[in-house]
Amino acid sequence: MSELFQLFKNTRSHSFALCKPLEIEDYIPQPVDFASPPKWHLSHSTWFFEEMILKNFVPDYQVFNPHFAFLFNSYYQTLGERAIRTERGTITRPTIAEVYEYRNYVDEHIENLLKTNSTPELEELIILGINHEQQHQELLITDLKHTFSYNPIFPVYKEGFNLTAQENADEGWLEIKEGVYEIGYEGTDFHFDNEKGRHKVFLHDFQISKSLVTNGEYIEFMEAGGYDNFKLWLDEGWSWVNDNQIKSPLYWKKVDGTWHSYTLEGLKPVQPKHILTHISFYEAQAFANWKGMRLPSEFEWEIASDQLDWGKRWEWTYSAYLPYPNFHIAEGAVGEYNGKFMIGQMVLRGSSTATPKGHERKTYRNFFQPKYRWQITGIRLAK
Amino acid sequence: MSELFQLFKNTRSHSFALCKPLEIEDYIPQPVDFASPPKWHLSHSTWFFEEMILKNFVPDYQVFNPHFAFLFNSYYQTLGERAIRTERGTITRPTIAEVYEYRNYVDEHIENLLKTNSTPELEELIILGINHEQQHQELLITDLKHTFSYNPIFPVYKEGFNLTAQENADEGWLEIKEGVYEIGYEGTDFHFDNEKGRHKVFLHDFQISKSLVTNGEYIEFMEAGGYDNFKLWLDEGWSWVNDNQIKSPLYWKKVDGTWHSYTLEGLKPVQPKHILTHISFYEAQAFANWKGMRLPSEFEWEIASDQLDWGKRWEWTYSAYLPYPNFHIAEGAVGEYNGKFMIGQMVLRGSSTATPKGHERKTYRNFFQPKYRWQITGIRLAK
Amino acid sequence: MSELFQLFKNTRSHSFALCKPLEIEDYIPQPVDFASPPKWHLSHSTWFFEEMILKNFVPDYQVFNPHFAFLFNSYYQTLGERAIRTERGTITRPTIAEVYEYRNYVDEHIENLLKTNSTPELEELIILGINHEQQHQELLITDLKHTFSYNPIFPVYKEGFNLTAQENADEGWLEIKEGVYEIGYEGTDFHFDNEKGRHKVFLHDFQISKSLVTNGEYIEFMEAGGYDNFKLWLDEGWSWVNDNQIKSPLYWKKVDGTWHSYTLEGLKPVQPKHILTHISFYEAQAFANWKGMRLPSEFEWEIASDQLDWGKRWEWTYSAYLPYPNFHIAEGAVGEYNGKFMIGQMVLRGSSTATPKGHERKTYRNFFQPKYRWQITGIRLAK
Amino acid sequence: MSELFQLFKNTRSHSFALCKPLEIEDYIPQPVDFASPPKWHLSHSTWFFEEMILKNFVPDYQVFNPHFAFLFNSYYQTLGERAIRTERGTITRPTIAEVYEYRNYVDEHIENLLKTNSTPELEELIILGINHEQQHQELLITDLKHTFSYNPIFPVYKEGFNLTAQENADEGWLEIKEGVYEIGYEGTDFHFDNEKGRHKVFLHDFQISKSLVTNGEYIEFMEAGGYDNFKLWLDEGWSWVNDNQIKSPLYWKKVDGTWHSYTLEGLKPVQPKHILTHISFYEAQAFANWKGMRLPSEFEWEIASDQLDWGKRWEWTYSAYLPYPNFHIAEGAVGEYNGKFMIGQMVLRGSSTATPKGHERKTYRNFFQPKYRWQITGIRLAK
Repeated sequence: MSELFQLFKNTRSHSFALCKPLEIEDYIPQPVDFASPPKWHLSHSTWFFEEMILKNFVPDYQVFNPHFAFLFNSYYQTLGERAIRTERGTITRPTIAEVYEYRNYVDEHIENLLKTNSTPELEELIILGINHEQQHQELLITDLKHTFSYNPIFPVYKEGFNLTAQENADEGWLEIKEGVYEIGYEGTDFHFDNEKGRHKVFLHDFQISKSLVTNGEYIEFMEAGGYDNFKLWLDEGWSWVNDNQIKSPLYWKKVDGTWHSYTLEGLKPVQPKHILTHISFYEAQAFANWKGMRLPSEFEWEIASDQLDWGKRWEWTYSAYLPYPNFHIAEGAVGEYNGKFMIGQMVLRGSSTATPKGHERKTYRNFFQPKYRWQITGIRLAK
Repeated sequence: MSELFQLFKNTRSHSFALCKPLEIEDYIPQPVDFASPPKWHLSHSTWFFEEMILKNFVPDYQVFNPHFAFLFNSYYQTLGERAIRTERGTITRPTIAEVYEYRNYVDEHIENLLKTNSTPELEELIILGINHEQQHQELLITDLKHTFSYNPIFPVYKEGFNLTAQENADEGWLEIKEGVYEIGYEGTDFHFDNEKGRHKVFLHDFQISKSLVTNGEYIEFMEAGGYDNFKLWLDEGWSWVNDNQIKSPLYWKKVDGTWHSYTLEGLKPVQPKHILTHISFYEAQAFANWKGMRLPSEFEWEIASDQLDWGKRWEWTYSAYLPYPNFHIAEGAVGEYNGKFMIGQMVLRGSSTATPKGHERKTYRNFFQPKYRWQITGIRLAK
Repeated sequence: MSELFQLFKNTRSHSFALCKPLEIEDYIPQPVDFASPPKWHLSHSTWFFEEMILKNFVPDYQVFNPHFAFLFNSYYQTLGERAIRTERGTITRPTIAEVYEYRNYVDEHIENLLKTNSTPELEELIILGINHEQQHQELLITDLKHTFSYNPIFPVYKEGFNLTAQENADEGWLEIKEGVYEIGYEGTDFHFDNEKGRHKVFLHDFQISKSLVTNGEYIEFMEAGGYDNFKLWLDEGWSWVNDNQIKSPLYWKKVDGTWHSYTLEGLKPVQPKHILTHISFYEAQAFANWKGMRLPSEFEWEIASDQLDWGKRWEWTYSAYLPYPNFHIAEGAVGEYNGKFMIGQMVLRGSSTATPKGHERKTYRNFFQPKYRWQITGIRLAK
Repeated sequence: MSELFQLFKNTRSHSFALCKPLEIEDYIPQPVDFASPPKWHLSHSTWFFEEMILKNFVPDYQVFNPHFAFLFNSYYQTLGERAIRTERGTITRPTIAEVYEYRNYVDEHIENLLKTNSTPELEELIILGINHEQQHQELLITDLKHTFSYNPIFPVYKEGFNLTAQENADEGWLEIKEGVYEIGYEGTDFHFDNEKGRHKVFLHDFQISKSLVTNGEYIEFMEAGGYDNFKLWLDEGWSWVNDNQIKSPLYWKKVDGTWHSYTLEGLKPVQPKHILTHISFYEAQAFANWKGMRLPSEFEWEIASDQLDWGKRWEWTYSAYLPYPNFHIAEGAVGEYNGKFMIGQMVLRGSSTATPKGHERKTYRNFFQPKYRWQITGIRLAK
């Protein structure tokens, strides 16, 4: 069995393993438009293999179900109509059992294809599909946490599975000297189009923290009136705080005078030494202001990353998600992957405890709108 | 076994029977705030028995699960906090299996209670609970149809089960002479508070149709440009048509030039002789205008009903849902049943193919906002 | 000069007189879609004479300005396109001076027409135009008050001009016996289509208050927690209270612990003996509930009116605004006057201190959505 | 008279001159929340001098009117409560005459102050106030155009005054070599805090167009289906196009088959050789995509600017509005000037035909949300 096929199988199995603790009921709801149900993640990542690979590489390929092309397309307008994004939670049929059949069907066809007809172009697309599925694994678990958080009885996903109970391994400040640095992916392994285009940037002297902000530090900010002091906030962030009555990180809840947070192990007391998470860019920026510091740029982060302990939180940077020089949108559906989101979003660097093993990369550019908090986000300060 | 207990058991079994064709997935979604998932209907009607009866009549009653009082309360503010109405589709736990356990648990306790300690007050509340569950049975099936209608693959609930494929049994016009008539429930059987208060009204001469409007007649209206002619519409109705781009009854869809409609047997061609359904009050009123006729008042309907064939559609009347003379709101939670909705809604009379047997009554006052179409509504003309 | 012409002139002059205390700036803004600027009222009531009369009765009539047909049509879809209702406050040109020229121009043509060519059909339309202008005079002053109320410096419209500082002249209860009564306009003077169709209704015994609810009585309701007790409110009213954080009648404001209200004489302390005003139907109904009473129906009001002192407040009834038996919509644009609003609104009877002299009538059916408060509304109880 | 005082007087007079062609009515409306009425611009820029200077520098200064601090504060939270931004169009009093009195009053006090007590700190604040007023002069005229555009009779502001009828003076491409460049304001003249912090950036080789995109070129894009081809658009831009049914630049309107646009001289045919304006960032970016090119970054623009003819349009760059290295927010109210808007906005460079003389600067960083079009924006391509 080829290494690639092994990676394919492992990735597909990991999605299955993530869903092991679920009841059928848990696969269905989509309470908000920015998150999707497990059923959809499982189907859409499978659809990707069928649509981008099997339909093109297998002669006379019979699709598992002709409706699925419509039902499980996400945003690829090139590939025709798609079900409405906000209505993913209404689709009860096919059943979960059928979704698993679908996955098996596609897996078998990919297996056959790899055995008989492997070409570099095919392998490249399979690697893209694997990385795509890994992205959806991370979303699957964070979206699920978000859906569970609506339930006033605080469901437990799995005992001992806690994405947010980590401490810092390092402390102090790292100093980097000014100069021209090279940024962007270099090499021949898998990477996304948005990190391609190795190019130079000039960085001034800066210092970057070796540790991430902890719950304890953030509680100090809260207790110092951080959420009530407009001077610390961007104008848009201040509106966000007031319109949504934000008073704490997402999932936090005061019970008998003590901060608790909803975790995948249920409602737990907030531990001051644990690394803070589930904060928006606005909160990250306000906290940095309060400290008299700032967030790093994505370039500073990338250059410093070799000397940092990272991988526990997606770290907000004060860089907008924009194209690198010479960024080109690929032809066809694959070209819709990243480029069209390059407006209104901020870059996050690193990776999180929800990121599948092997999917993280120091040149990886994650991006979200500044208001979002349901990912495993965190704060690293610079000055 | 007492007759009441038999009725209780039959009613509870009927809810179960209605859900027989469902997959677990189907119990969950709530795509719109005005409809609820099957899971919620099954739980809430059970909660009603637990909350209104068992907690009060069984000494030291142990609730099945203390969270359920919160999760499955609908709008009874008297009884404390409740889960948010628009978030019913997010609650995956308890599972469906647990909901059925809950139903069994409550059924057993009601059975014991009826065996050992039956009083008129108790029996009255059980009859209320039965009628309440019957109301939810009707909603369960119409809400389910609505959720299924979102699915582009048009799920089949059950072959041979079609709520909307009926023809008229009668034709022509019934004439009623002017005079003072008595309106409202008279007798000692079960009835709701809103139909109580027998009182007199004066009716002028009127004629009322013995048949309901058919799909064929409505297609004539559509083909005559009914949806484009503002003169036929109430101002609010005209805004509704334009804001929502309404061009046909709910669930209708043109396929290859022919009108089809989604039914619980899947997508089917619209039959001209079948009785029209899934129309709003606005559409009913515009159609009547187009015919140069009008909708009956609820009083005209009630007086004529003895000589009419009714029970296939909820028939829109041109009566607002307002209190009868001497209407009094009952004390306590039961008092929240109907009275507080007496604004902004129109009365529908009769009953529909989705109404459980024995639940219909000529004095029954159903009511919905004029825009709603997901119930089995229809049009009877008057002049 | 004919009596009709005199009435026409007086009515037109009264609009002018109402605007005497205004600055040009005051003619322009429209802060909410349900109210209109003075400029628009002056223009639209003039447009009505031009569009409905001059264009049809004067051979080769030259319109004052061809754009005005578009700019100052309100909702008459029969007469072609119209400016968007919510954008009336954006139209700065024509200037106010031009609007007054327009009024003079139309007045002269009407004068000529009446002198030379008076027919019963023409006179009927002029009377309609006069009544239409009177309706807009009432709206002009109440809309103006609403716009002024946005200004934190509380502008004074005119010293000594106060629409809301009246006391009750009568007290006690009037008893009416049950029976068949006749309702609706009878006679040959001017009346609207919605009050036509004299018909019989049956009324049960009832009592109706000879006085209107005062500020003092309403403050008792407020101090007894009326706005916090959901049991008193219709469900829709309770949402309205909470969504809009309603805590008092419109324009009330607590200053140094004392209730004040914005009046056309500026901010004034609320006088307990003055008759309450600026309340919604929801508030009227909740107050009646709190008293253990109810609002009268519009039929009860009409029958009792001969023995009541009325004319200070528009009195909310618990009757929905629906067509009388044999109501027919007139042909053409005039037919759009009232009929198309017969849904979702409640009837108010009587008239208010803002109603022009001679415009009030005991069969007059005013109507508003239950949430509106900017008219001079009040409460009369029944039981 | 000092040079500074002359500049102050000239600037203040220019605001007055801009309003010369206005009727009083034109000073009032605010149809959208992102624009403000002339009355507000005149008052707010005056308030700035009173609040930031006179109150601090004139002993026992008597404010013109104590309400104005509240009425004419824009967004300076440091300085206490302010009138609601979206309600500026509702404030009819003070009148325009009073606003001009207010301006004169403040002008006299500033004049006295400069004569008697000039210090560098004072002069710096007066220069800030002048620049602030110049910014509002540009907004005044563009906001006014926007309000006038709502009027279906297309008001003429002034014959011969046309902000958008310019042609390119230059053509071809300018080439810039890669290297480390210095960015940001250098010198001692007036500049804003956001352009301060001279720093180095590395630029790769690039070419930038010597001309701006013309109406003719943009019409080609439109005729080639640019607004219908999702591949050209950012995802957010594509939603914007569809949600708002965008089919052309702002103010364009097809009359008898020919494109016209609303200008301050009324509705005029679009001239193909004129420089395109009133387009959003989304449109600029889609057009660049269609050309196979891109927008310049703000740094490229600044470095190239010495060799470019600029000043006719605000030129969209593909740079997000973010802080320069070492950006610090000033203490007090002045610190709210720019920094808090550094999220969700794109940088525009250059200046426009609406920019007051002497206010333009090659390091000037203007910024708007990508959807806005009411400024005099344009496109310069890079590759």
